[in-house]
Formats: sequence, C-alpha cells, structure tokens
Amino acid sequence: MDSATCLAIALADGFACHALSFDYGQRHEAELRAAAEIASCTGVISHRTLRLDLGALGGSALTDTSIAVPEAPAEGIPVTYVPARNTVFLSFALALAEVTDADAIYAGMNAVDYSGYPDCRPEYIDAFQVMANRATRRGVEGRPVEIRAPLLRLSKGQIVRRGLELGVDFRRTVSCYQADVQGRACGRCDACRLRQQGFADAGVPDATRYQAD
Amino acid sequence: MDSATCLAIALADGFACHALSFDYGQRHEAELRAAAEIASCTGVISHRTLRLDLGALGGSALTDTSIAVPEAPAEGIPVTYVPARNTVFLSFALALAEVTDADAIYAGMNAVDYSGYPDCRPEYIDAFQVMANRATRRGVEGRPVEIRAPLLRLSKGQIVRRGLELGVDFRRTVSCYQADVQGRACGRCDACRLRQQGFADAGVPDATRYQAD
Repeated sequence: MDSATCLAIALADGFACHALSFDYGQRHEAELRAAAEIASCTGVISHRTLRLDLGALGGSALTDTSIAVPEAPAEGIPVTYVPARNTVFLSFALALAEVTDADAIYAGMNAVDYSGYPDCRPEYIDAFQVMANRATRRGVEGRPVEIRAPLLRLSKGQIVRRGLELGVDFRRTVSCYQADVQGRACGRCDACRLRQQGFADAGVPDATRYQAD
Repeated sequence: MDSATCLAIALADGFACHALSFDYGQRHEAELRAAAEIASCTGVISHRTLRLDLGALGGSALTDTSIAVPEAPAEGIPVTYVPARNTVFLSFALALAEVTDADAIYAGMNAVDYSGYPDCRPEYIDAFQVMANRATRRGVEGRPVEIRAPLLRLSKGQIVRRGLELGVDFRRTVSCYQADVQGRACGRCDACRLRQQGFADAGVPDATRYQAD
C-alpha cells in the first residue's frame, strides 16, 4: 500500500522511475509478486528485485521463523523491526541512483503509524541524506541525489486517499506479514490492522483480499 | 591487506569479533577464500560471507566486465569505484551489530591511498555514524554502535608495519583486482601498485604471490 502509493507519487511528480524491490527473507513472496505486477502496470523504466541475505543475520520476526509474528500492538520497538532494514534498502537505492544518474530516491517510509521503528523517523531520513551527499560521486560533484519520503508524515488514512486519487489499485497490494501464496491477508497481524484502520479513516471500502473470504 | 590488518586491530583492542565478508560480483573469488581462511585462523566468533547483487546494478570496472580495469592511476574518482559500496557494506554491518548487540563496527577504509573514493573519507564516516545512531535500536536507547575506521588516516606503508606488528600473514591476503584462482596477483593494477608501494615504504620484502612467479 505504501510502496504503491509512493511510486504513484513519484510518477505524478514527473519522474521516469526505476523501481527496486527487495527479497530479504520475508515469510511470504506474495508481496514481491504484487510489487512486480504493479511496477509493470505503471510503466516504470525498469523493475529490479534484489535478493538480500538479511535473514542470515536473524533478529526479526519478519525474517527469523523462530520469533512469532505478534497479533496485538506492543510498546516500544516491535519484534517485526528488521535491524537496519531501511538503511540497507536506501543504500542499494543510492547505488542504483548513482548508476542510473537519478535525481531522487522515493521511499515509502511512514513515521505516523510505525513510530516504533527508529528508521522511519524524519530525523533518520535527514541523517541519511547528509551521509548520502558525502558517500557518492554525485554528492561530491554538488548534484546530490535527493532522498524523498513523501508518506513520512501521512496517516494510513491519508495514504489511502492519496493513493486512490492517483489511481492506485489497492486490491493488488499486499501489506499482511503472513499473506498466503495468493497474496490474501490474515486480517489479524499489525500490518493488517493498520491497513484496515487506513481504509476506515479514509471512509472507503476495505480493498483487501482476505484468506477467510 | 587492509581488512586483515583491521581485524587484527579489533582483536588487539580486546573485542570478540564477528567477521563479515561480501561477495558482490568481484571478478575473482580468491579474495573471499583468503578472507575466510584468515578469519578462521584468527579465532573470530563467526565469519559470514553475504552475497550481494551489486553486480546487477552495474557501473564499476570491479563488477561490470564491460569496463576495463585500469593499469595506471587516473585523476578524480576511479572507474573501479563501486557506487555506494561502503554504504551498503556498513549498512549490513550495522544490521549484524544490532543482532549481535555489538559495541563497535571495525571497517578497513583508508583515506590516504584511496582519496578518489568519496566513501573512504573521514567526513563520510562521521556522517554514517550520525545516521547509524538514528537508524538503530541501540542508537535510540543511547548505546550507539561505534563506527571505527582505524586505517582511515594511515598510509599503505603504515598499514603494512601495523599489520606485521600484530602478526598478520600478508602472504595469505589478496589485494589484486584481477587475481587468479590461486589468489596470485597480476602486479600491474592500481591495487597491486599501492600494495607494492606499501611494502617499499615499510622497508620490508613484498609478501605477495605473483602470477609471473
């Protein structure tokens, strides 16, 4: 939902886009199939799925099957937090931006609903921008790659509304942490609850395919 | 040479170490075999080799076989520069540091001999540290992972001397950009020239196995 809306915003901003997905040992691959489908339907220049070995590092319920996915919100940093995940993702995006001589990176982080994740906060994005400016050929040459996180301060309801305005087909998107092979959601995990709340707040019908249906 | 000396420094500083190597589509694998050998001989807690898809992004003579490896130093940023490479490496190290609750990351970047690489400069390391503090659970909790680059301001000659003091066996190390399957060096690429200069500056015999020998 966030990634699809983020891509729609980048396209609406007039960018020709290279889309980048990551296969990092999530428990299901439905999300990646959905990403490839959405990318091909929106006319991006390219779509890559990079396989990352984050699962080999362990430490998160999303990549380590010995940690249970929670079904109720918890205090502090959730067990679904993947250590340094957004830093790894943005680093690869930075590499791709250098190779393709891109002017900007659009990333779908969101600070409102995921306040427990340290790498979804505005001050994190700001620090990544400073680091990126010093890390890259473009930065050294005074043409830095701009890191944009257009969803950062939006609520899930606002993301749903923005996505619908831009023509995003949310039935194609997968948010659930434990979706089945057809991409149908469990309806019970943190991600499903946030998504349901998003549709409710936007005042539109829930465009999610559930396993129970 | 740099990585082996860096690991020896971390061990000498009293750390129990998790070693991390990256298979990122280099033209040869001799470097990775050497890294695994050296790690196992020095008694690290663990050694991981993560496979990265940097080659799929293209853009460097080290990962893209359509770009020739240069045999003479050039002005500016060299074609052997791999876009955002150190950022990607440090990001994975940061993930591993969070999972293992490590106090520090030791990285073998060197600013003196590789001044053409933007991500080998002190101001880059400083910016990565700030970003890492905001990206991680440890950072949020006020126990940041310290990014250490002990070779940053050393000349290649000083690295050779420091390594020898700490018992590094440089015959096992591979620096060459186009080493053969036995890890023997070409003697002509940038990396070989820097290494030769290092031994000369340190006033010790060149402990390198060459293809011509």
